[in-house]
Amino acid sequence: MPYHAPVEDFAFILKHIVDFDQLRETELFADSTEDVTQAILTEAGRVSDEVLAPLQRPGDLHPARLENGVVRTSPGYAGGWSAIADGGWIGITADPENGGMGLPVTLASAVNDMMSGACLSLQLAPLMSQGQIEALEHHASDAIKDLYLPKLIAGEWSGTMNLTEPQAGSDVGALSTKAEPKGDGTYAVSGQKIYISWGDHDVAENVCHLVLARLPGAPAGTKGISLFIVPKYLPDNAGNPGVANSLRVVSLEHKLGLHGSPTAVMEYDGATGWLIGAEQGGMAAMFTMMNNARLGVGIQGIGVAEAAFQHAWAYATDRKQGRSRRENASGTITDHADVRRMLSTMKAEVFAARGIALSCAMAIDLARATGDAEWKARAALLTPINKSFGTETGIAVSDMGLQVHGGMGFIEETGAAQFCRDVRVTAIYEGTNGIQAMDLVGRKMMDGGEAAFRLLDEVAACASEARAVLPDLGEAVWQACETQREATEWLVAQSDPDDRFAGAVPYQRAFARVLGGYVHLRAALADRGGAREKLARFYITRLLPEHEGLLAHAQAGAEDLYSLTDDDLAA
Amino acid sequence: MPYHAPVEDFAFILKHIVDFDQLRETELFADSTEDVTQAILTEAGRVSDEVLAPLQRPGDLHPARLENGVVRTSPGYAGGWSAIADGGWIGITADPENGGMGLPVTLASAVNDMMSGACLSLQLAPLMSQGQIEALEHHASDAIKDLYLPKLIAGEWSGTMNLTEPQAGSDVGALSTKAEPKGDGTYAVSGQKIYISWGDHDVAENVCHLVLARLPGAPAGTKGISLFIVPKYLPDNAGNPGVANSLRVVSLEHKLGLHGSPTAVMEYDGATGWLIGAEQGGMAAMFTMMNNARLGVGIQGIGVAEAAFQHAWAYATDRKQGRSRRENASGTITDHADVRRMLSTMKAEVFAARGIALSCAMAIDLARATGDAEWKARAALLTPINKSFGTETGIAVSDMGLQVHGGMGFIEETGAAQFCRDVRVTAIYEGTNGIQAMDLVGRKMMDGGEAAFRLLDEVAACASEARAVLPDLGEAVWQACETQREATEWLVAQSDPDDRFAGAVPYQRAFARVLGGYVHLRAALADRGGAREKLARFYITRLLPEHEGLLAHAQAGAEDLYSLTDDDLAA
Repeated sequence: MPYHAPVEDFAFILKHIVDFDQLRETELFADSTEDVTQAILTEAGRVSDEVLAPLQRPGDLHPARLENGVVRTSPGYAGGWSAIADGGWIGITADPENGGMGLPVTLASAVNDMMSGACLSLQLAPLMSQGQIEALEHHASDAIKDLYLPKLIAGEWSGTMNLTEPQAGSDVGALSTKAEPKGDGTYAVSGQKIYISWGDHDVAENVCHLVLARLPGAPAGTKGISLFIVPKYLPDNAGNPGVANSLRVVSLEHKLGLHGSPTAVMEYDGATGWLIGAEQGGMAAMFTMMNNARLGVGIQGIGVAEAAFQHAWAYATDRKQGRSRRENASGTITDHADVRRMLSTMKAEVFAARGIALSCAMAIDLARATGDAEWKARAALLTPINKSFGTETGIAVSDMGLQVHGGMGFIEETGAAQFCRDVRVTAIYEGTNGIQAMDLVGRKMMDGGEAAFRLLDEVAACASEARAVLPDLGEAVWQACETQREATEWLVAQSDPDDRFAGAVPYQRAFARVLGGYVHLRAALADRGGAREKLARFYITRLLPEHEGLLAHAQAGAEDLYSLTDDDLAA
Repeated sequence: MPYHAPVEDFAFILKHIVDFDQLRETELFADSTEDVTQAILTEAGRVSDEVLAPLQRPGDLHPARLENGVVRTSPGYAGGWSAIADGGWIGITADPENGGMGLPVTLASAVNDMMSGACLSLQLAPLMSQGQIEALEHHASDAIKDLYLPKLIAGEWSGTMNLTEPQAGSDVGALSTKAEPKGDGTYAVSGQKIYISWGDHDVAENVCHLVLARLPGAPAGTKGISLFIVPKYLPDNAGNPGVANSLRVVSLEHKLGLHGSPTAVMEYDGATGWLIGAEQGGMAAMFTMMNNARLGVGIQGIGVAEAAFQHAWAYATDRKQGRSRRENASGTITDHADVRRMLSTMKAEVFAARGIALSCAMAIDLARATGDAEWKARAALLTPINKSFGTETGIAVSDMGLQVHGGMGFIEETGAAQFCRDVRVTAIYEGTNGIQAMDLVGRKMMDGGEAAFRLLDEVAACASEARAVLPDLGEAVWQACETQREATEWLVAQSDPDDRFAGAVPYQRAFARVLGGYVHLRAALADRGGAREKLARFYITRLLPEHEGLLAHAQAGAEDLYSLTDDDLAA
């Protein structure tokens, strides 16, 4: 299953869609020159193509397994992890003081996109570490930072996130894991956590768990939650892994996909942990790590979509079938209009989603580099849109890739089905896409829609100007933008949250559709008469109109939904 | 994984949506009284719930396997097959002279829906036999009919369809399997066929293959194809399985899903076969069998969607999480607007798809019972729409069911993922949904759209009348219908087939959306103020508007598609 990192696409998007130069003008990221950028993309692309892509099938065929309480990873994964670690890719955005590269999240996102496309189940491991690194950088004491960060960044140790409990699910506030002060500055952590990605493995010498737990007497709900770091092996005085902590892997899940990634049920039985951040400050620290992970998960979807597109393209351009009356026919199934429609859709969707994802990453970087509240609000707004659209794109494009293969797509050896199976979880983990949508129309609209309107203003201004050179495309994007604005006005006027929530997912998807139109329009403006203008025309003419139906759905309100009683709906 | 056959839904649809009484007024189906109908639905429902549903998980966990050239099926499948055979369900529409029940396809469709929902991989076996029975009834000699039909109908023998060859795929005309006359009225069939569902097994004593092959000197392409019946064991003089024929199972496919259904690569090495129908008349005979199977496959999708809905509903109403401010809150995740949106969507989609499928079946029955060409054209028009929308509904609803489960959905033990894996192939086999769409806008519009316009007239008339009592719903369906009419007018005016094909899939889906609106509107009219009116409001307000975006896509033409060259699209 060959994979070729789409380095040129990233270079184009950085230059023409997200205006990466803005970042280079800041003091913080002045070192991210064009040369550095190009070198980073090229080298990460090489590792993805040569080292990681060959691990994609073995991870599926030989899942991680639990043997005598220890997790054995898939063949080759230890080498893959080392290549990621040795290249410095885990700490790409981390503080250089601890061994990080100190590069923008935007570049890290491009790298994560390529590595996800090459081998999703392995790439999930560094993504977890990255979330932990960021949480520690922001919230840990200096002693913890000094001890853990160099190890995590070097990939000697790895990180996990422990949020979910069996009885709590998405309702994090219902968690019951306890942490009792031991009197020596440490805590005894006890409880069970589920869905712990890379909860244990044999690719690094220690596994550091960030665990949400409740201190004695803590209030109920999310405000009573604190965060702890609980390593598999307790560091000795020299900072090396010492005695085993009181924690264990109860079992690994048997999953639809992502077989190379060990998903553990973890049990903590008075395990020693250290508080990260303030007492009862767990949610704030968790959100640091979650927001990072949400961006990363959206990007996982896009990476898989890219790989599934390449895979289907390779099949289609090799598969001779039927006859075409057209000039320049290749004799392969790409001559068929419907196959071509599918392949064009796949390519156009990946491009749109990637543009949105890198815009989100840019907003994060600019917020950090400039301290500007508007960039911060932009990042907050785009995070759920990117997470959901990136993952939906991963699922839809992989599914279309399977369909392009016809009967072969249903046969596992072909490899098309693995993309579908692997990527499916991205719409669920780090907050389901439904939860992202509630975040978008709830918390992210607590500003009365200000951040949303500001972004739509930007889209409308570009579309309006574009009318002069690309009248049909400019007009279509402008219209779509205004329809989205009206829906947003309707939304923020609703006082009952359920009226917002009832259409939140369609609203979120429509927003992504409109932003995808903006991404493609900017690409068309930068490549007049070229392939990108043609692809933009395809997207704007054929895919963008979906937003209308979605926005009708988005504004339907909650009444009809709840007028259907449980008895009405019951099977 | 409990399954409860939705017997009431069928009774409602037969009475209020498809007007089953029309059929009872024909001489052919005068015996399908209300009592008979109810008895059939109830008993098939019982077999589905009690006998077949318990086989769903074992089939997935213990796939059919090839042992020393013989296929061993999943645990319990032999008993399941016997229950289907002994109940007479294989020959439900077959001629009573040969042991069939002689009932309408409409009732058979309801039965197949239930059995597909209970256990898709096993239900595929009788579906294959049903296609073969119909092909033999229409095209075989009396001697063949007398020998094979009673055995197939009784389930002592089973039937398969052998169309696809590795190099030919969807391009049936490219097949190269040969049949040479042996001079005694039989033929020696040689070649390799792939994707043969239930190509071998141990649940019946003989396996009868309908094989497409080419006679010596036959013209190239589809017109040179003939059809042969090639049994695994040659019948002896008493009509019992005698010596083994020269054919073998080369291998079984390792598939994404449907593990309980053995999908064989078959090799024929001078195997003895008998001609079915005229020499070079293979395509006509094949289409008899294909049209039957296409209806059946659309219904497979709906059956799985029903089961996935029930499964998700059971989970959601049992899963306590979060708090709701609403009165009558259950404390489960069904209180959440987005979960409720998903469950309502699932239920509404299943109902729409089922109404369309049974309308298609009714048209088939009425065409046969009355000889009326308009019914025949209606059946021809609805066949691809049902096949594609039924299967897309199966895929989309199963996927939503997985999402309702959250993290649990990705864990195989939950069972939600199996629906997704199993149903995925239905959008591919018996002609991919892309091929269905080409059939719809090509062959099925060779009447200048007459059959389509006639159906839209019917929808418009109902919607127009409905305005008096349900103004908003009537108006919305009427508008959607007129938009579909305009798109159809555009479509039939295109002389370049690629202009039709370029938007064929979106056109097909939009047509199904509009027909779904019609189905729900009729349900609302029949259940004023009841659950079905509320569900209709949900569908018409929220899901129907999707047709607009789809129809924009449908009318985009082929130019932009082909202006994107292979170089432009290349990864």
